[in-house]
Amino acid sequence: MIKLTYLKPGTSPSALQIEGCTKGAPPKITLCTYDISTFEEVMCDDASDAIRRMDPSKNNWIDINGLADIETVRVLGTHFNLSPLVIEDILTSQRPKMEHLDEGIFLITSMVRTNKEKEGEVEIEQLSLFFGKTYVVTFQPEQSRDSFDEVRRRLRMEGTLIRKYGPDFLTYTLLDTVVDHYFPVLEMIGDDTELIEEALVERPSRNTLKDLFHYKRVLLEMRRGAWPQREVFSHLMHEEKGLVCDQTRTYLRDCYEHITQIIDIIENYRDLTTGLMDVYHSSLSFRTNEIMRVLTLVSTFFMPLTFLAGVYGMNFHDSPYNMPELTCRYGYPAFWIAALLICLGMFIFFRRKKWL
Amino acid sequence: MIKLTYLKPGTSPSALQIEGCTKGAPPKITLCTYDISTFEEVMCDDASDAIRRMDPSKNNWIDINGLADIETVRVLGTHFNLSPLVIEDILTSQRPKMEHLDEGIFLITSMVRTNKEKEGEVEIEQLSLFFGKTYVVTFQPEQSRDSFDEVRRRLRMEGTLIRKYGPDFLTYTLLDTVVDHYFPVLEMIGDDTELIEEALVERPSRNTLKDLFHYKRVLLEMRRGAWPQREVFSHLMHEEKGLVCDQTRTYLRDCYEHITQIIDIIENYRDLTTGLMDVYHSSLSFRTNEIMRVLTLVSTFFMPLTFLAGVYGMNFHDSPYNMPELTCRYGYPAFWIAALLICLGMFIFFRRKKWL
Amino acid sequence: MIKLTYLKPGTSPSALQIEGCTKGAPPKITLCTYDISTFEEVMCDDASDAIRRMDPSKNNWIDINGLADIETVRVLGTHFNLSPLVIEDILTSQRPKMEHLDEGIFLITSMVRTNKEKEGEVEIEQLSLFFGKTYVVTFQPEQSRDSFDEVRRRLRMEGTLIRKYGPDFLTYTLLDTVVDHYFPVLEMIGDDTELIEEALVERPSRNTLKDLFHYKRVLLEMRRGAWPQREVFSHLMHEEKGLVCDQTRTYLRDCYEHITQIIDIIENYRDLTTGLMDVYHSSLSFRTNEIMRVLTLVSTFFMPLTFLAGVYGMNFHDSPYNMPELTCRYGYPAFWIAALLICLGMFIFFRRKKWL
Amino acid sequence: MIKLTYLKPGTSPSALQIEGCTKGAPPKITLCTYDISTFEEVMCDDASDAIRRMDPSKNNWIDINGLADIETVRVLGTHFNLSPLVIEDILTSQRPKMEHLDEGIFLITSMVRTNKEKEGEVEIEQLSLFFGKTYVVTFQPEQSRDSFDEVRRRLRMEGTLIRKYGPDFLTYTLLDTVVDHYFPVLEMIGDDTELIEEALVERPSRNTLKDLFHYKRVLLEMRRGAWPQREVFSHLMHEEKGLVCDQTRTYLRDCYEHITQIIDIIENYRDLTTGLMDVYHSSLSFRTNEIMRVLTLVSTFFMPLTFLAGVYGMNFHDSPYNMPELTCRYGYPAFWIAALLICLGMFIFFRRKKWL
Amino acid sequence: MIKLTYLKPGTSPSALQIEGCTKGAPPKITLCTYDISTFEEVMCDDASDAIRRMDPSKNNWIDINGLADIETVRVLGTHFNLSPLVIEDILTSQRPKMEHLDEGIFLITSMVRTNKEKEGEVEIEQLSLFFGKTYVVTFQPEQSRDSFDEVRRRLRMEGTLIRKYGPDFLTYTLLDTVVDHYFPVLEMIGDDTELIEEALVERPSRNTLKDLFHYKRVLLEMRRGAWPQREVFSHLMHEEKGLVCDQTRTYLRDCYEHITQIIDIIENYRDLTTGLMDVYHSSLSFRTNEIMRVLTLVSTFFMPLTFLAGVYGMNFHDSPYNMPELTCRYGYPAFWIAALLICLGMFIFFRRKKWL
Repeated sequence: MIKLTYLKPGTSPSALQIEGCTKGAPPKITLCTYDISTFEEVMCDDASDAIRRMDPSKNNWIDINGLADIETVRVLGTHFNLSPLVIEDILTSQRPKMEHLDEGIFLITSMVRTNKEKEGEVEIEQLSLFFGKTYVVTFQPEQSRDSFDEVRRRLRMEGTLIRKYGPDFLTYTLLDTVVDHYFPVLEMIGDDTELIEEALVERPSRNTLKDLFHYKRVLLEMRRGAWPQREVFSHLMHEEKGLVCDQTRTYLRDCYEHITQIIDIIENYRDLTTGLMDVYHSSLSFRTNEIMRVLTLVSTFFMPLTFLAGVYGMNFHDSPYNMPELTCRYGYPAFWIAALLICLGMFIFFRRKKWL
Repeated sequence: MIKLTYLKPGTSPSALQIEGCTKGAPPKITLCTYDISTFEEVMCDDASDAIRRMDPSKNNWIDINGLADIETVRVLGTHFNLSPLVIEDILTSQRPKMEHLDEGIFLITSMVRTNKEKEGEVEIEQLSLFFGKTYVVTFQPEQSRDSFDEVRRRLRMEGTLIRKYGPDFLTYTLLDTVVDHYFPVLEMIGDDTELIEEALVERPSRNTLKDLFHYKRVLLEMRRGAWPQREVFSHLMHEEKGLVCDQTRTYLRDCYEHITQIIDIIENYRDLTTGLMDVYHSSLSFRTNEIMRVLTLVSTFFMPLTFLAGVYGMNFHDSPYNMPELTCRYGYPAFWIAALLICLGMFIFFRRKKWL
Repeated sequence: MIKLTYLKPGTSPSALQIEGCTKGAPPKITLCTYDISTFEEVMCDDASDAIRRMDPSKNNWIDINGLADIETVRVLGTHFNLSPLVIEDILTSQRPKMEHLDEGIFLITSMVRTNKEKEGEVEIEQLSLFFGKTYVVTFQPEQSRDSFDEVRRRLRMEGTLIRKYGPDFLTYTLLDTVVDHYFPVLEMIGDDTELIEEALVERPSRNTLKDLFHYKRVLLEMRRGAWPQREVFSHLMHEEKGLVCDQTRTYLRDCYEHITQIIDIIENYRDLTTGLMDVYHSSLSFRTNEIMRVLTLVSTFFMPLTFLAGVYGMNFHDSPYNMPELTCRYGYPAFWIAALLICLGMFIFFRRKKWL
Repeated sequence: MIKLTYLKPGTSPSALQIEGCTKGAPPKITLCTYDISTFEEVMCDDASDAIRRMDPSKNNWIDINGLADIETVRVLGTHFNLSPLVIEDILTSQRPKMEHLDEGIFLITSMVRTNKEKEGEVEIEQLSLFFGKTYVVTFQPEQSRDSFDEVRRRLRMEGTLIRKYGPDFLTYTLLDTVVDHYFPVLEMIGDDTELIEEALVERPSRNTLKDLFHYKRVLLEMRRGAWPQREVFSHLMHEEKGLVCDQTRTYLRDCYEHITQIIDIIENYRDLTTGLMDVYHSSLSFRTNEIMRVLTLVSTFFMPLTFLAGVYGMNFHDSPYNMPELTCRYGYPAFWIAALLICLGMFIFFRRKKWL
Repeated sequence: MIKLTYLKPGTSPSALQIEGCTKGAPPKITLCTYDISTFEEVMCDDASDAIRRMDPSKNNWIDINGLADIETVRVLGTHFNLSPLVIEDILTSQRPKMEHLDEGIFLITSMVRTNKEKEGEVEIEQLSLFFGKTYVVTFQPEQSRDSFDEVRRRLRMEGTLIRKYGPDFLTYTLLDTVVDHYFPVLEMIGDDTELIEEALVERPSRNTLKDLFHYKRVLLEMRRGAWPQREVFSHLMHEEKGLVCDQTRTYLRDCYEHITQIIDIIENYRDLTTGLMDVYHSSLSFRTNEIMRVLTLVSTFFMPLTFLAGVYGMNFHDSPYNMPELTCRYGYPAFWIAALLICLGMFIFFRRKKWL
């Protein structure tokens, strides 16, 4: 599930020889230009087009949806004066982090979402963004279609806080959206683990084990994203270059607390999945134990009886010592009485052992 | 068991579109107005009514019991000048925390109580409160009926410390009540795990496993509440705006030590439940082992005997080489002697293996 | 095993409504008055009597043995000017801690001792004490009879360090006694776990499991006491009000190192008990495996043979096709040869599987 | 897998009596002399030859490939004024670390690579290097042939950053190569563990267990190398003697972030391998359980039937009480009906137990 | 294995009433007097003799081999002005630590060695030493004969560093010897665990389990010694009283790094032994599973066949309904065909279950 994209070992960061990167459709580039009273949304042909249309007197949000085309990133990088290392960061797998640019801030975050189509699947993707005094540029991997739709909707409405403040508040809103997406995922995992728990105790199967391990993997991945994200918020809150205004700081603190809570819940769920592994195992042992008990009961009841029947099926003859029981008047009823006594003895034995 | 309430991802905190929140009856609002010599307790119709009746020259305690009605919180928020983020915090799931308001302090705590009706059930709920120079406002989710009854009783009595000091001491008393409720819950869990241990060793069943895992979940949840609560007390003790007087600080330190002790006990119990999982498992293995031993003993005793009986039940004839034993004078007694010798051999073998 | 005493939730600390506290006999109060040249030891009737007999020009040690009578503690608290919170601490379960009083220091420690009567049992109890310029007051729960006997013996002898120095050195001696009692307990646990290990590998039983889990519990409890105790010694060593003289500080450092070593050993033993749980489990699996092997061997040897014997016990007749073997001259010897060949085949198969 | 080389206990570091060191071919010594416009690459005969050929006006990179010959290291050590302790560090197993020399910096790093020949094998080796104002000297154990080939290729090209900057940038490039080699290894492990997971659930075998434990070992070793390496980068970034220029520092930060990410992934994989151990175990238990169910079903169906058949194979006769069923008109059909009824009963019983 | 020696609880440190201490032969006392040009080695009769022979103008090393005689330690303590607490530390079990004396430094270290006689046994013993401007005094428990032989050999040689520098360098050399002894032990454990791993997967036995747990214990003990030892080196390196010269500090740093590396390896091995416990367990489960499969196969093949044979061994007669098969012309061949068909059916069933 961990899909790594990384530079070919030994190559220069600026060469952008990336392993694990898949070619795809060209990126969808959206430019939103807005201030407190105006709002405009344009689909751009390419990166240069978007740069040309930017209005430096307003707030500009360029959203790149799809990272298959390295050229787009390079063009934006050149215009916004990004170092080759930052461009490499956008294109390869990175931990969430914050970095100061010459005149802005660069952020990498880890987005988590439930897959609408496949029940129980969780998508984890890397969102990069940087913002300056008048612009925010976001990079989403192609498959994610609607992460920021709700934000765009709020942006279109007049009078919202998001329109009132600058790019730092838009950045906060985007980060908050990223963080809030963790909650439904955690809720789903919480509900599912409870179902799994029930299934494990009642009827453990190979698939429950698979599901359980799947969530174990997912939680590990989410945790790997969440921990450094918390640091990112902390760094952003205490940023000192004046790019983040006081109002936004207060809101970022809220974000920070949410991600802390998310981390707590993730850690709890990890503990629970480990515990459920034990439950699965114990549940199986319990069933094996029960099956064995039945087998043992049946065997211990019938083995002596079968032996007894076998004895009187023997063909010894021609001598008064040879099986006089067979010709005895009450031989056969005596056999059944003996069989019943054996059963009774067994029964008492098992009762005392508490196996019955 | 973790019941999350959270904002819909992408929406603004001030929009209060909350997921996981259940509609319910209107809140019960109680206002206590008191100073060292007077005490008055009124049930209010709604939030505005409570605000109107407040007496700024005395200490006022507004208790909101039930959070289904967002409007109530909003009205109080407007009057006490709370930011939308604080209102969101009251209505959604949060970690215990302390936050400075413009002229007061806002606290979220995690309350734990045994369920009176369902044996072994533990209720965990979020209590929010804020206090200023002359008021304390508390928010309890509806289901909790009597968490603060005992405090109200002490408030009604003249001469108690709680009447002598201001809202900060009332806040301490409420927090102390929250913390002290952990002890009976831990006591219950301690007693129950000892019962479970005994049950596990003597007669492991599917239900003991369920109970054990239930307590594992509860302890994880309690721990998630207790750790940040400790930080809250520490922050409150070292608050510097003069809202907490020295006397109260001393008492808060006591609270701080209690929650530290609670955390220690929770961690111990978590270790014990994990250990008990192992005990359950080992106990099952032990029983399986014992059952197997009986099965093996019975099988190894009777299988050779049955074979022997089978041999002499064969119908070979018409040749002196064919089963001369059958017509031998002491054939049948010899058979029994052989059977006894086989049994004896087995017995010695098992004795040496220490299986008997 | 964790026996909690705590305030009823919601009640005031000064009300002393304690849950989990058992009534008992009145406390035994001993007063020792000593300086470098004199020593006097009196049994007092009650707390007031002890206070009256104190000699402020010498060192006084009041030892309260038994905490069932709340009144005794209250009287001493009033005389020594203790806050209600300190009195609560003496009477309820607390973590080891150090607290500054107006003119003295208050300490809570956790004492561990082997139970003389019940083999393998460990008693953990809370000892509280406070000391000032001229006095030490110690509180022991009733059941402990002789924890400080050895100290009293040294006090009676002239020329010992304990007589030379003041109450701080007496306090150190008492704390050192508390710490030194951990060693024989750890030694006992160490010896017992080695016996348990041996028992586990050779003949795992239900009782070894119980013993093992018992020690797991004990170690967890000891650890809960030892960790904060280390902090207590550290705080006491760095106390700055001049109540602890330099000589005593050096000795306290020794104590501090001992408790650190104790913590190390406890952690090691915890790791070992967890490992032993695995050993128990593996040992059981090994035995089950061996038993199964015998069962499988016996079954696979005798099942085919029994079938063969069964075949020639059938009664087909009246047709030349029906069991001509039975009348064949060497039918019966051929049967035995077949049986032996089957056994040989099995034997080779099992040898290659390394089951024999 | 941990191959330790260390000094014989008690001997002096300067004596270089090394245990665990294997003799081999003489080292391959390559000298690259370059500046922004020129580049020269020579194979040297021995260490003295390389020292002689160095051009102090340019950047020099001496690469020692193979550490079997202690003399080579000693000669270089004498020329570059290394202390005996540094020479010991190059020749024995060490943790990654950074150390200040008189006029340079000495680094030990841990290199990880997939073995091209053996699928799934990972090679971990120690690379030592030191650099000064005009030189870099690297030491590779012999078996590694091409770790730095890609770097040499970039060095040969004019206009690359590596040619522009000094030995500190070359050092960064070498370190970056070391770090980047971790990614393909982690990718391989990630892919393999997914295959192992599938294999474990579907058809657990002894080899999957071996593979799993192999990766556990590898991850532990990689982790042992990665953690201190992170410190090395941190120290190097904050080096204060002016040997590392600002540009290089920025690039080193990138390296630092990569190694942090690598550590995160290693820790995740460690958690996963532990989880997979549980999966293996549970998967086996599940299969055992299933096999047992079949055995129990077969046994419980056929044991009573076999007994019944045995009964009617008995030879009781000569009395009207002895087996009148045998001569009964519908005796045999009745037998089959009884057999079917027994089967039916069993079937219903197992259905209710959910074993069928 | 943890052999504790400690003061009897409640007794004074100066009384030296030590529990767990065994009486033995008198100590072997060696005095080495040396400076850069001279060296003398004498066996002394007792402690006073050694003190008398010391030459204050040279470096003196008194080595006490054997701690059974408390008097020897007391005499040295008096001469070198040691506090009773230090004397207690030498004679009882302590964590590794460093302590400042009036005019010297006192050190406790934990020595680890392989037992030459018993394969796989590891000896852990406490070495105490103190040194001043002109002397080093070392205390070894009796059983260790040759820990410092190699050091003495180097001391005898002229021109070695050890002869050039003072007692601090000798101290370093002794500490380095202590640290270097860890490596062969770790190498042995590493080699043995690999053998154990192989044995576990191929043929798990009770002894491998014992060995594994033995190493678990050893590693825990080594770890308990190694961690504080690291602190000791750190404290010694940063000692500020001028007893340790700069040259020695550099060498001590080397020691510090070695012990850090040792700690890393110990932690790795602890993880591996825990993992091997799982491997053992899984390996057993795998074997049980395989055995069960054979048992189940044999049972399910032969049980129906035996039943069939049993049926046709029944004695129903006297009615055309009673077993007409028996007199049927092709009855017996039909029986075999039926038997083969049953086998075939079973075979197909097991193939589809992948049990064959």
